[in-house]
Amino acid sequence: MIERIGQRTLRFVGRPALLAHAAAVGRKEGAGPLGAQFDYVAENDRMGQKTWELAESELQKTAIRTALRKAGLRNGDLDCILAGDLLDQCIGSFLASMQSDVPYLGQYGACSTMAQGLALGACLVEGGAARRLVAAASSHFCSAERQYRFPLAYGGQRTPTAQWTATAAGAVVLGAADERPIRVTHALFGKMVELGVTDANNMGAAMAPAAFDTLTALLDDLHAQPRDFDCIVTGDLGHVGADILLTLLRGQGIDLSPVYSDCGSLLFGDEQDAHAGGSGCGCSAAVLCGPLLRDMAAGKLDRLVFAGTGAMMSPTSVQQGQPIAGVCHAVVLERSA
Amino acid sequence: MIERIGQRTLRFVGRPALLAHAAAVGRKEGAGPLGAQFDYVAENDRMGQKTWELAESELQKTAIRTALRKAGLRNGDLDCILAGDLLDQCIGSFLASMQSDVPYLGQYGACSTMAQGLALGACLVEGGAARRLVAAASSHFCSAERQYRFPLAYGGQRTPTAQWTATAAGAVVLGAADERPIRVTHALFGKMVELGVTDANNMGAAMAPAAFDTLTALLDDLHAQPRDFDCIVTGDLGHVGADILLTLLRGQGIDLSPVYSDCGSLLFGDEQDAHAGGSGCGCSAAVLCGPLLRDMAAGKLDRLVFAGTGAMMSPTSVQQGQPIAGVCHAVVLERSA
Repeated sequence: MIERIGQRTLRFVGRPALLAHAAAVGRKEGAGPLGAQFDYVAENDRMGQKTWELAESELQKTAIRTALRKAGLRNGDLDCILAGDLLDQCIGSFLASMQSDVPYLGQYGACSTMAQGLALGACLVEGGAARRLVAAASSHFCSAERQYRFPLAYGGQRTPTAQWTATAAGAVVLGAADERPIRVTHALFGKMVELGVTDANNMGAAMAPAAFDTLTALLDDLHAQPRDFDCIVTGDLGHVGADILLTLLRGQGIDLSPVYSDCGSLLFGDEQDAHAGGSGCGCSAAVLCGPLLRDMAAGKLDRLVFAGTGAMMSPTSVQQGQPIAGVCHAVVLERSA
Repeated sequence: MIERIGQRTLRFVGRPALLAHAAAVGRKEGAGPLGAQFDYVAENDRMGQKTWELAESELQKTAIRTALRKAGLRNGDLDCILAGDLLDQCIGSFLASMQSDVPYLGQYGACSTMAQGLALGACLVEGGAARRLVAAASSHFCSAERQYRFPLAYGGQRTPTAQWTATAAGAVVLGAADERPIRVTHALFGKMVELGVTDANNMGAAMAPAAFDTLTALLDDLHAQPRDFDCIVTGDLGHVGADILLTLLRGQGIDLSPVYSDCGSLLFGDEQDAHAGGSGCGCSAAVLCGPLLRDMAAGKLDRLVFAGTGAMMSPTSVQQGQPIAGVCHAVVLERSA
């Protein structure tokens, strides 16, 4: 059963369970501070494929396959796959699952896609529409860079606010309640929030107001304080966006800092030249499905808010001068003893 | 409550209601055989906008706004919008709803997006995750043509199997059961089916096997014959794909022809030079939300299977030689007396 709490929060009474999770990342991500906590680190970001798009799809396929193996399940046990990525027509995702023989529902929430899929997936499991499903998302620096910015070989300069698209993928297997300890307890679907940002090299600023909107609504609905959670993590605000979010919240008398992290800020070390931090659908997907869920499984985190952030834009919309809207979907994960 | 019937069919016990529906189309579509049954026909396909992408978003916005007006609702009454289109990063849809202040979940099912959104929306309403929501989809000949094929001014020759991307949008408002007569009773999420088609100018052939897979599974699960429905309609197989579908079904001893239609075959008249028929997310969306749902409301159709078809490909995947997979999501709509 799904209950509505307050204005916008959904509560999953049956607490859909995370049956397994897996993260697969590229070489640079594997060399970062979280490297040891991913299930798979590519030796070569080409993943043995002929194109970067196929490499991304292979990375997502690796995350899904690994999560299924960890859950002791096969494709045939799934009722559907919810997946998405940043590429035109979400090619990374549909190629990853094209031969899976599992019903497929493509999702597009920009970099918030993992959170969107996880929240929707919890609705489907809790509502009885699916017994077991996979939610997955991916991004790849090389496929994204040439699509959104410059040809790879061009070696364009990056601005200080620019973020580095993660070569990464994450997948979770969700299912109806059993003895598994990690559960999805709440979700809140985000609104697009647009405050006039048009700089595609400053996504953090475009997304922070959406994260503010979603997190204040969630805390309000739950009558909760940040301290009620062990960790509240945004998807890929990066250093710039994270600062804006903390400032906006402070203006409302909310101090998020004691429990706050951002996947984009966590993924790369300062020496890795990732400027304002990691980004891309795969950034939050891999940090959730790698280190964060490992920490939950190990009992280091009991209550986590995963607030996936996305910037609604396309190379065309930016070139046509359209503003960039942020969106942020939140999922609350809890570990039972 | 959502029950599983047979292998893959979902039954919505509470029968989510269609609170309203609306279709907005371009000039050519308005001049076709269904022209009088759309809510809005553009005088000029630019829709008063500076770019084709904004024109598409304006068309989708018009469909959503009209559906809401017909339902007597405002944006604030919605719990979410599920929308998608064919453009890179689904720009037509996110621009259409950017200022709506409604939670937004982008969908990408290629031309099956309307069916995907409608089926997912029914799951959300029935499961209690949303009280009222909009499912919408759109396409625009001018934005799609230049993205997928040639610059508009180039005037490229079209092959006989090619389809004409519809300038069209459709939107439905779904809500928990009330007195409204049209209900969503069942849905079946489609698998990607790929049989080696690589010709982006023969989408019908790429999608027909997926429609075959979905329709046989649905009829099987429901222990139904085609004649149990007043109409079984596919999204945009066009003349070529529709023939393939009928042939494949005949091979299984199923004669679909007495109740079969295809939105792509219905949309344009023979004299309109649309070759194998209409296509695009907007094609099935507008034919459903215009003529088909009007016929249901008027009591001319009582049981309808809407089987939205999509071709999973992108200009990049086709250029890289990847096969085109079809996908087909089915929704059963019934009218109560």
